[in-house]
Parts: sequence; structure tokens; C-alpha cells
Amino acid sequence: MIRLDATAPGFADAFTALVEDRRESSTDVARDVAAIVADVRARGAAAVRDLTLRLDRHDLDVTGWRVDPAECAAAYAALEPGLARALDLAATRIRAYHERQKPADTDYVDAAGVRLGARWRPVDAAGLYVPGGRAAYPSSLLMNAIPAKVAGVGRLAMVTPTPDGQINHLVLAAAHLAGIDEVWRIGGAQGIAALAYGAGDLAPVDVVTGPGNAWVAEAKRQLYGVVGIDMVAGPSEIVVVADALNDPEWTAADLLSQAEHDVTTQSILFTDDGAYADAVAAAVERQLDTLATGAVARIAWEANGAIVVVPTLAEAMPLVDRLAPEHLQLAVDDPQALFDRVRHAGSVFLGRHTPEAIGDYVAGPNHVLPTGRRARFASGLSVLDFMKRTSFLGLDETALAELGPATVALAEAEGLPAHARSVALRLRLNR
Amino acid sequence: MIRLDATAPGFADAFTALVEDRRESSTDVARDVAAIVADVRARGAAAVRDLTLRLDRHDLDVTGWRVDPAECAAAYAALEPGLARALDLAATRIRAYHERQKPADTDYVDAAGVRLGARWRPVDAAGLYVPGGRAAYPSSLLMNAIPAKVAGVGRLAMVTPTPDGQINHLVLAAAHLAGIDEVWRIGGAQGIAALAYGAGDLAPVDVVTGPGNAWVAEAKRQLYGVVGIDMVAGPSEIVVVADALNDPEWTAADLLSQAEHDVTTQSILFTDDGAYADAVAAAVERQLDTLATGAVARIAWEANGAIVVVPTLAEAMPLVDRLAPEHLQLAVDDPQALFDRVRHAGSVFLGRHTPEAIGDYVAGPNHVLPTGRRARFASGLSVLDFMKRTSFLGLDETALAELGPATVALAEAEGLPAHARSVALRLRLNR
Repeated sequence: MIRLDATAPGFADAFTALVEDRRESSTDVARDVAAIVADVRARGAAAVRDLTLRLDRHDLDVTGWRVDPAECAAAYAALEPGLARALDLAATRIRAYHERQKPADTDYVDAAGVRLGARWRPVDAAGLYVPGGRAAYPSSLLMNAIPAKVAGVGRLAMVTPTPDGQINHLVLAAAHLAGIDEVWRIGGAQGIAALAYGAGDLAPVDVVTGPGNAWVAEAKRQLYGVVGIDMVAGPSEIVVVADALNDPEWTAADLLSQAEHDVTTQSILFTDDGAYADAVAAAVERQLDTLATGAVARIAWEANGAIVVVPTLAEAMPLVDRLAPEHLQLAVDDPQALFDRVRHAGSVFLGRHTPEAIGDYVAGPNHVLPTGRRARFASGLSVLDFMKRTSFLGLDETALAELGPATVALAEAEGLPAHARSVALRLRLNR
Repeated sequence: MIRLDATAPGFADAFTALVEDRRESSTDVARDVAAIVADVRARGAAAVRDLTLRLDRHDLDVTGWRVDPAECAAAYAALEPGLARALDLAATRIRAYHERQKPADTDYVDAAGVRLGARWRPVDAAGLYVPGGRAAYPSSLLMNAIPAKVAGVGRLAMVTPTPDGQINHLVLAAAHLAGIDEVWRIGGAQGIAALAYGAGDLAPVDVVTGPGNAWVAEAKRQLYGVVGIDMVAGPSEIVVVADALNDPEWTAADLLSQAEHDVTTQSILFTDDGAYADAVAAAVERQLDTLATGAVARIAWEANGAIVVVPTLAEAMPLVDRLAPEHLQLAVDDPQALFDRVRHAGSVFLGRHTPEAIGDYVAGPNHVLPTGRRARFASGLSVLDFMKRTSFLGLDETALAELGPATVALAEAEGLPAHARSVALRLRLNR
């Protein structure tokens, strides 16, 4: 953890270093992934089977390529009732929030008599990647699947690695709840490639979303354009802006809720009170000692954590904008005043009683958010990621007479005579 | 040009071959581009100067890095009046269409007392790539710049190659009209890298859009994630669905208006009348003989063109959906009936008096559209490409009491105890 004082000499350089520390994987996985993608494209199911045998140590022809929908239904039925209710509440609230994202079509006739508009339609099929192992989160499955369902996508195919054939039953329960149509036991870059190109009985999809490791992220990047993808995701981060009226234990837990995900995550506190900064730092140390995920969280906090003391919280906001954080908590009495100054953030958590964890599960907004300063230009996952827009226009003879001559002039100026001719013939101009 | 009959044996395979012929560049430019991008990232302006000297044969320190805004204003003032009026009409109509794309913010409190919403903001800076040479189109500049302006982007930086120092004055005039803030004499992959990372006095931008050759497209693909990009663009295509009541000369010109762009473009006619198909094919041949761009258009038509005769035009529509064309003309009396069956297309041109060229220039909808079957999942360029959405939520103690326990249950099930603790502490649960 580094501690910075915004009024100290050298702060500008130190803060710039913090902003520019991207924490992206330095491993060059691009070449490995390119080979896997090419193999799956060329050999289809045979390549997927070979890669799964090598990387996940099970034979798909023996363990089975797909998980039976009845197995997902059974996993859901077997959930502890409190957990089932929690998942149901999450699904209901996520659905309600995303319903409001459905875009409106437009269709109008303007003053020139031109019919104009845009029509939104869902993609035909979406593929969801769900990680196996430690990061097998049913909440992520809901966050990816429900927007696709709300968009109206007809077919949802999920791929997930089952190392040594083992599968996470909580994920299967969530797949049942979310209405996933197909669950495939395929992981890694080969899972992404199989979704994009198809493999055996797995038909290709149009959009691939979902979190994954560096291989999965690189495969999505390489296949962007063959399919649509949600985004290039990197390590996660949280920024907490808090005054001294917060309980330091609450703030410490908020910072650690990010740090416990992975050693590459980043937690940053901005506060206007040096003594409060001390109190939070001490609370983090105490909580790390008792946290089951403390080993991971400690590495993340020590390597990437930061506490920045600023003269006033208002002065923190331009600094926060430079970080363009994935998650931003504004733990003050009047969060709106600070929120009004925010230009770049994935999701904002307003007030002292809105810990980021609420947004991870049940609040409703999506928890798939732009990381690594990408909130400067990217948005969280939404219904729009599973839809596309077709524009349209229609002219009658009168409207063409009005717009045609300008089109002919521009086409000729650009050296495109067939463009000009397609209009001129209809206008009965002699060209 | 191939001619297919939907009722002939072997049609299914022949049509599938047509769908799967992607016409993408097979040149492997990825390695060259990676080297250029790494060089610009490492050495900044010095790399850009070296690359420009080598590739565009002029020294930026001599010719000047930027074009003076006064030079753009002068180019606009010097336009032939008819052409100036045409450009003005295009800009006005493009702006009016895109104004309707501005997304609405949401902000509401739900039944649980949770404040929820989403807030859209423009990116801080956008970079526009404008090709030099034959494909230097002022219309493309307007189509890229105006949505950014409508979005509210504060800074628009344009890069364009000026081979041997020569610049296209029509493009400068359009830059003035569109309100471009900075015009840089940098092209190719180095232009994209300079926008993404910054170079010398060129500050980095957040989103890069605009057409370009294979090097430019690959640079955008490689830098996706460092910046936002519009899309991966490939060769252009048009599908015309026409009955025998159309003048074959009109339809021939429509097909050639795509073919004249580039030898890789594709023009496909679907018709329900064999004799009409013959008449259009003959008209294409006649027009090719007199077209100034005939040499390019003939190669494209012969290599990639197709005429498909179908029993009824309604039966053409599932085939059109498989092509997911960039441009789709429905040249019939009742285009709406066919349009209702379209799921995948970039832009649709309704009726006999709506040639695609109208959409390229003055109608209003964007002419930057998904190519190569990408209309299955992608949309044309829009105001949204220059904006991003921040979700937000706010809970008070009562709302947290309602949603908190489910969050704790899910966090514990996922093995994330700090998430659970951040909520439990606020609920004064003993964990």
C-alpha cells in the first residue's frame, strides 16, 4: 500500500505513476491463443477434445460434451432455501433493472418527406463464458445471461471448464435459473473459439461475453469481429471516497472486498482526514488477520493499494476521473454533490450504506464493468451488447428530387460516378 | 459474377459458399502493425516522424505536423458554391438524424427504496482517421465527426496521411465544416497509435473511429482496449432485392455504386424474374463500358458479384439474413412487407426511389456500417460510440436491511468473506 498526500511535494508524479500502473498481465499469451484458435477453427470438435484432454484432463467423449438440463434443474432444486431465495431475488432485480435498458425504435418522416429511423433487434445467439475453479461465480452467470434474455436472444450457450470433470453445482443452479439453453464442458481459449466458429454439435454464436483468465480474454480479443464481445477486461479496482464520519471498519471491509478477488486488484481510498486514513489502514491490517481470503487480499493491498489524503473531497474528484475506476463509492452525507463532478466511472455507489458488494449481487445494475481506466470510453455490460440497430430510409420521387442533386454533386466530387448515376437515372438527368 | 437459381440442384451449397466467402485481406499485416504500434508507444513523436518519412516521404518537421485551422477554413471558403451547399445539406441532415440517438439518463427509486439509474457522458476526446489518396472522402469525415460532436465530445483530433506532403482540400473543407479541433498529417498504423498513446504535442484520445486500409484496421484491432474503436471494417457490400418492375438500368447502377469502391466489394441482386436478371446483367455490362471507375468495378463485379433468382421475393429474405448485408435495397412497391422479415442488415433502403447512394451522403443515417456479415451483431456508427454509461445505486439503512442478507448469503456461497463483511458490519450482524 502506498500513502500519498495531495499537498506534499512530488504528489503529481506519484499520482501519475498510480494512474499509469495498468497491472495488466505481462505474460505474452497471444501466440498460444492464436494457435488454439486456429486449431479449433480448422479441426472443430476434434481440436476441442484434444485441448480439453490436455488442459482439463478429461475426455469429452467420456465425461460428455454437454451438461444435461435436468442436472441444472436438480442443482437448483437442491439449493439450501435461503440461498435459493437470494439467487431468485438477485435474478428478479437484475431483470427489472435491465428491462429499462431496452432501446426504443424510431420511425418518422422529416420535412423533406424522407422516412427515417432505426430498428433494434436481438442477436440470434449469445455465448457465455463462465470460469471454473475459484472464480466460478453464479452471480456473474446471472449478470451475463439476464441482459441477453431481456434483449430477446433466442439461444444462450454457455461454456465452462470442468477440470478433471468436476463441475460447480452453484453455477449449474444459476444456469437453470437464468434459462441457459446449452451448457458445454469446454473452457479456456478453446471454449471461446468453439463459440465463435462452432465445434461439432455446438453451433456458432454471434456475441460472446463473460469473464475469464488471460487466455480467455486474449481469445475474445482475437475473435472480436468474428463475433461481438463485451469488452477486454483486466484486473478489477475500487475507489472509495470517504470522510472521517465513516466507521473505519466499514471502509476497510469495502477496500478488502475488492482486494480479496485476486492479487492484481486495486483498492484506493481518498479521504480528507489523515487520522481517519490511519484508522482505516489499521482496520485493514486487523481484518486481514481474520479474513479467510486474507492471503490473496494482503498481496493485492500491499502491492496495489493506496490511500490518498486530499485537502477536501471535492479536490479528489479530478483525481478519481483520471483513474476512471470500475467501482466508485462515495461514502459521504451528500454523495450527489460529489457524483455531479464524476465524468469517468463504471458504477457509482452513493452514500455510507451502499457498499460495493450490494452491486455485485442483488441491486440490479450489471457488475460486468470496464476496468483499467476503460470507463473513460466503455460502459458496463447491458442489453445493448446483445442487440444491434438497423437504420433505414425511404424516399419517394418528390423527396429524391429534393436530395438527389446534392448527392450527385458530392458523388462526382468524390470520384464515384456510379453513385452519381444511380441517382441521376432516377432524376432523369442526362449523365 | 455468379448466377444462382434457388430452385436448381446444388443451390444450398453454392449459396453457403457465397455467404462464407469473407473477402477479407489474407495479407498478414499483424506483425508489421505490432512493430509500428510498439515503436510509437516507446518513442512517440520521433517514431511517428521516422515512419512518416519512410512511408509518406515527407519530413513532418519540415512540412509541419498540423494543418493550420485557417487552411481548413480557406479550403471551405474556396469550395464551388453548389458543392458547399451540398456539404452543408449533408452536415445538417446527418446532425438532425444523430440528435435523435442521444440516450436518456435514468434515475428512479424502486419499491425496495433503492435509488437506481444510469448516466451517459461523452468521452473527453475522439480521434478520427481519414484516409488519403483515392479513398479521401469528405462524406466519411462528416459521418465520423458529427456523431462525436452531437455526443458532446470536447476535443476532436483528426489524423490523415499526406503522401509526399500533398493534402486533399475537400477533406480540409469538410474538417472545417464539421468543427474538427486538430488536423494532423499522420497516416497509417502510426496515425492510430499516435492517437491512442499520444505523440509529441498530439495528446492521446479515448476513442478512435474512421475507415482505413488493412494496416489501419489492424492497428485499431490491436489497440482496442487501450482506446475504444468503432468496429473492425472489411470490404463493403450491397444486396438489392428487386422485382421486374424496376428499370434494369437503375438496378445496374445501384449494383455498380458498390462495385466501384474497391475490387473487394460485393454486389448481389435477388430477383424473382429470370428475364429481369438477364436485363440487369446486360445493363451492368453496358454501364461498365462507360463508367470512369469501370476498371475497378468490373473486377469487383466479375469476382464477387452475384445474381440469385428466387421463386418469390419473400423467399429471398432468409437468404438475405444469412448474408447480413451492410446495405440492403428493397426495390419493390411494398418494401415494408419485406423489411418486416429482415433480422440482419446494417442499413435498409426502402422502395424504388431510394438508391443506396442517397444514404452515403445526405439522407442522415450513418454510412459507417457493419460489413462482412457483422450486421448479425454490430450496428452502424452512432452517437453511442462516443459516449459511455455510468450506472449508480444508492441505499439507505432501510433498503440495506432489505437487500443485505441476500448479499451476505451469496457472498459467502461464492467464498468472498470480505464482500459479506462489508454488508454485515453495516447490518451489525456478527460475522
